Amino acid sequence: MYRFTNDYSEGAHPSILAALAETNLEGNFGYGCDPHCERAAALIREKIGRPDADVHFLVGGTQTNATCICAFLRPHEAVISAATGHVCVHETGAIEATGHKCLAMPCGPDGKLTPDAVRAAVAAHPDEHMVKPRLVYISNTTETGGAYTAAELAALRAVCDELGLLLYLDGARLASALACGGASFEELAALCDAFTIGGTKNGALFGEAVCILNPALKPDFRYILKQHGGMLAKGWLLGVQFEQLMADGLYEQLGQHSTRMAQRLAAGLEKLGVAFGSPSPSNQVFPILPDEVLKKLEGSFHWEAQGPAQPGFTRIRLVCSWATCEEAVAAFLLAAEQALADCPACL
Amino acid sequence: MYRFTNDYSEGAHPSILAALAETNLEGNFGYGCDPHCERAAALIREKIGRPDADVHFLVGGTQTNATCICAFLRPHEAVISAATGHVCVHETGAIEATGHKCLAMPCGPDGKLTPDAVRAAVAAHPDEHMVKPRLVYISNTTETGGAYTAAELAALRAVCDELGLLLYLDGARLASALACGGASFEELAALCDAFTIGGTKNGALFGEAVCILNPALKPDFRYILKQHGGMLAKGWLLGVQFEQLMADGLYEQLGQHSTRMAQRLAAGLEKLGVAFGSPSPSNQVFPILPDEVLKKLEGSFHWEAQGPAQPGFTRIRLVCSWATCEEAVAAFLLAAEQALADCPACL
Amino acid sequence: MYRFTNDYSEGAHPSILAALAETNLEGNFGYGCDPHCERAAALIREKIGRPDADVHFLVGGTQTNATCICAFLRPHEAVISAATGHVCVHETGAIEATGHKCLAMPCGPDGKLTPDAVRAAVAAHPDEHMVKPRLVYISNTTETGGAYTAAELAALRAVCDELGLLLYLDGARLASALACGGASFEELAALCDAFTIGGTKNGALFGEAVCILNPALKPDFRYILKQHGGMLAKGWLLGVQFEQLMADGLYEQLGQHSTRMAQRLAAGLEKLGVAFGSPSPSNQVFPILPDEVLKKLEGSFHWEAQGPAQPGFTRIRLVCSWATCEEAVAAFLLAAEQALADCPACL
Amino acid sequence: MYRFTNDYSEGAHPSILAALAETNLEGNFGYGCDPHCERAAALIREKIGRPDADVHFLVGGTQTNATCICAFLRPHEAVISAATGHVCVHETGAIEATGHKCLAMPCGPDGKLTPDAVRAAVAAHPDEHMVKPRLVYISNTTETGGAYTAAELAALRAVCDELGLLLYLDGARLASALACGGASFEELAALCDAFTIGGTKNGALFGEAVCILNPALKPDFRYILKQHGGMLAKGWLLGVQFEQLMADGLYEQLGQHSTRMAQRLAAGLEKLGVAFGSPSPSNQVFPILPDEVLKKLEGSFHWEAQGPAQPGFTRIRLVCSWATCEEAVAAFLLAAEQALADCPACL
Repeated sequence: MYRFTNDYSEGAHPSILAALAETNLEGNFGYGCDPHCERAAALIREKIGRPDADVHFLVGGTQTNATCICAFLRPHEAVISAATGHVCVHETGAIEATGHKCLAMPCGPDGKLTPDAVRAAVAAHPDEHMVKPRLVYISNTTETGGAYTAAELAALRAVCDELGLLLYLDGARLASALACGGASFEELAALCDAFTIGGTKNGALFGEAVCILNPALKPDFRYILKQHGGMLAKGWLLGVQFEQLMADGLYEQLGQHSTRMAQRLAAGLEKLGVAFGSPSPSNQVFPILPDEVLKKLEGSFHWEAQGPAQPGFTRIRLVCSWATCEEAVAAFLLAAEQALADCPACL
Repeated sequence: MYRFTNDYSEGAHPSILAALAETNLEGNFGYGCDPHCERAAALIREKIGRPDADVHFLVGGTQTNATCICAFLRPHEAVISAATGHVCVHETGAIEATGHKCLAMPCGPDGKLTPDAVRAAVAAHPDEHMVKPRLVYISNTTETGGAYTAAELAALRAVCDELGLLLYLDGARLASALACGGASFEELAALCDAFTIGGTKNGALFGEAVCILNPALKPDFRYILKQHGGMLAKGWLLGVQFEQLMADGLYEQLGQHSTRMAQRLAAGLEKLGVAFGSPSPSNQVFPILPDEVLKKLEGSFHWEAQGPAQPGFTRIRLVCSWATCEEAVAAFLLAAEQALADCPACL
Repeated sequence: MYRFTNDYSEGAHPSILAALAETNLEGNFGYGCDPHCERAAALIREKIGRPDADVHFLVGGTQTNATCICAFLRPHEAVISAATGHVCVHETGAIEATGHKCLAMPCGPDGKLTPDAVRAAVAAHPDEHMVKPRLVYISNTTETGGAYTAAELAALRAVCDELGLLLYLDGARLASALACGGASFEELAALCDAFTIGGTKNGALFGEAVCILNPALKPDFRYILKQHGGMLAKGWLLGVQFEQLMADGLYEQLGQHSTRMAQRLAAGLEKLGVAFGSPSPSNQVFPILPDEVLKKLEGSFHWEAQGPAQPGFTRIRLVCSWATCEEAVAAFLLAAEQALADCPACL
Repeated sequence: MYRFTNDYSEGAHPSILAALAETNLEGNFGYGCDPHCERAAALIREKIGRPDADVHFLVGGTQTNATCICAFLRPHEAVISAATGHVCVHETGAIEATGHKCLAMPCGPDGKLTPDAVRAAVAAHPDEHMVKPRLVYISNTTETGGAYTAAELAALRAVCDELGLLLYLDGARLASALACGGASFEELAALCDAFTIGGTKNGALFGEAVCILNPALKPDFRYILKQHGGMLAKGWLLGVQFEQLMADGLYEQLGQHSTRMAQRLAAGLEKLGVAFGSPSPSNQVFPILPDEVLKKLEGSFHWEAQGPAQPGFTRIRLVCSWATCEEAVAAFLLAAEQALADCPACL
């Protein structure tokens, strides 16, 4: 059975597991006040080229988004997000639970928020009878696999500066964005007020790093972190993992691997004549496959069905991770080829 | 200067003002625990045919919606509303400030939420990674003047029963809905879990009555009321006003008057060839007028501009209230006729 | 039947009622954007000697406290209050409902918060595992009738400056504080970051004015006001009332009257040998009376029982308002004298 | 350098680390829907003798308390806790951040909440102008090391039943409570509406299990879990750890070890004539030591200083964990003995 269900089906990269074992009994102060967190933060500051950045480590993505947005906004301020954005749809209203409205703006199949959409959100909220749009939320890669280029990010930054908005980037899948032409670490740090570096989906057992660049957003962040249950008692577990990820290019290599595997799947399927629900250069791909074919594959492979496309066809999501092996990809493509061959009328 | 800006530009109906003056020094217990509130509640229970209803009095509409929705929902539960719904747009995120997401569903120009839209909202939220739709919010009349008929309300009730949802009706402009063919008081009480009866926009200085029919929603409502700042110290002021409104058909008469005045405006404008941005049988009408004409009228009349329609034309909102006099309506129509005549190419 | 239950048992001072009647049909824009609110704000700015103050009008006290505190604090920041403070005890957790902890500090029988108590609150919260004390809440008069002198207020201001705290004064009963030696309007404005001027308990039908002095607390206050349901549709009703109160010393006169009446009660009771639960120079007094005596009085007078003192005695609260007449005070004292005479062993 | 600072200074028990390594690549569905979580939950249900219990796994303690309390309460309902309770003091207002007031009640040096304190909290909140006490929060062991016996817990249960309250037990340090005479797993399950089983402080890398016994508290808990950021993507990491802890008595053994080590410290110090700030039979002890002695020890040992006792003396906290070795305990006692001997006038 091969899994393409998501990129958090396996544990940690062996080097991370080894580091956790090695440091297991060394004894550390709690709550992220330990040398591992310090070193990991220093490595991140160096990688993003911002010695002034505040770096914090949290366990999970929903927690990270809710904590940051709650820390950055006043009560009447709202989030602008693509309608498919993770905070809008898949976090059980965690942002609203902290009191803030998410304004869901239309976006294309790549899931990217455009400067025009940001402008439209602000224009639609002119006075105090409405929430005040204040923070632009983007995920990179997006929920449908898109990666923001440096130019796209710069355009969003420009509109944020013009309209007095904050730019926050959710990097739960940042490793794949980096691997497929998205803005670099330095560009992210230069253009965002804050962004996150996802570990959970790229080799860690768990863990997201938050980089705060805008000095106005830094004060008292650890209070909000604690209040939202995001301050891990054994905080050094996060430090140890990010030390591994940030050293020697491991983070980038794992993202390149997951992306290469997914793109190999996409290329193979495309060659077989398969269409895609959305274009994605990253570690998630969204083929539209005949239900008959899927029925044959489902004994050997896991994926997420995302709903019917045209009659008889379903859009599925195939995700590769740092742990996806070439054999799994080859097996899927072979099985798909055979199933499609058995069903000549299918495509 | 005549005002069609809104239906809360004047104070109270003279009989209400007289009652407030008369009772001014009688001495009453505070917080709504007084004979006036009791009598007003009894009159409402009688009028809606539900001796079992819990009736509470609050000062304003946003406060009323936030208090009710906060009282009725658990933290992960969400509101389904038309995208133009007051709670979605014009309450500065008051619902989100209590932790609940508002799901903005598409609606027609009449601003009504349909059973299909309710179904779509529920279908789009299948699991615990998303909020759980739980309360259907409708305003009656809607923000664009539509009134729910008994049949439309029954259809919403049916879908709510089927899907385990609560039906909450915001009656800030209920008086006009009653006057133009909307469901009756008894029908509202039979079909909604809770609804409100707006006084502010129909003859009171201020005041909204909440009727809770569903027994599961009744416990401890006064705690939530107090917590949200909605428990008026001199609560009898609300009781006195609703005693007047509910006795001798005053509430209905005032709603009929405001509706008649607005429809007279609409009919007159239609005769002049004016088109409308949305159909409205109630006390708000939405003509689309040439900017040149509006420029001539603006010295003598107030209205709310709602944005450009086709080039050179603006959609405006004209609202009549219990206090709108026939002279004002006649003056507007005469002025509009002249302005249109002066501008033959306009329409 | 005479009422000493509270200071919000009657409606409005006749001049206010007259002003409301007079302006009833004049037509005004909504939401506090009208000439009456402008004039009332100007009168307040003049009275407090701060042309730079932002002035807002709200309906009730709980709403006002919750709106201000929510507007002024970040999520992890907490309120320091006397344990008897209104926000701590009598607002159904309205402050906590906006996410903020109230730190209840010990206070004396006068209900005043001391600089030492403020220091203790801050000292007890040294790090990010605890909330961060940020706003000092005081009520003036306090819940037990105390009035802050200018010197006491200056001492609190000094500790706030030293510790980086905001000073917020709830003036629901400010009129009586002014009448009994409390800090003056100008002193309040010089020493507080924000304070409120209560109308509800001093001649208005309802209404509290918020004066914001600290420029950092001013931006976007109206958004929070609207979000908390505190923006009255017919906002000019508040303006009209405060125009009356602020002109020609009416506000001060009414406070002097209520205070004089209560102090006459206190002096009379003291002469009869009655002890008091707490010293109060203001419009509330707290005699401790024999239960036998209270039984005789309860047919003719209303008050609030506040619980047993020594066995056979109950502490009661007697409150006078702008509407309390001399006859009521005389009647109470006469009845008390007789009842005490009938019960020689009582005192 | 030996650490007695806390019980979360080391990583996981070797068998847990081994299990994590073993299962690292097996592939699992996310979010706690995996066979490890199922098995761990089954083991817990068996251990507590309640096949009907709902069991959920979360990462940390503050998150767990906030999620449970938010899920269990309506907006106006409050928590009753000992004044030293973790939710009252050390969670940065996480409970208030979900809108609920914590009522801090006096408690003895053992940190236990008594039925009388619960009664007093309810008696002090008689009406809707105040929050409604609804959930009794206790931690076991308490913050000062006390463990609730079955009889004490039954007495709290009785008062909860009488007053309509929920009983929630925070078992962050449950293992030590079990080891020192506290109520058993079965007794906890019979007496609490919900309780937690702490893994972080007893051998796990991280992890708290929530057991919900009261059926009324079960619905939709996973929604609230997700909304509060408590649903771990790689949820099986929690399942794997609790499988180890719950099998073969490991959980109990580790608790017995940490408790034995701490009590050996206490007994040794007592023999040296040292007094204690609070009695504690569990894995935390609170000796009062001369500052001169502490100065000598601080080069070789870590502890938490808890503030001055009598002049020249400081109350410290010594905590032992599953990983504390006998050598460390012996070394501390030896060093203390020498330091005290060097300072004959000290005790």
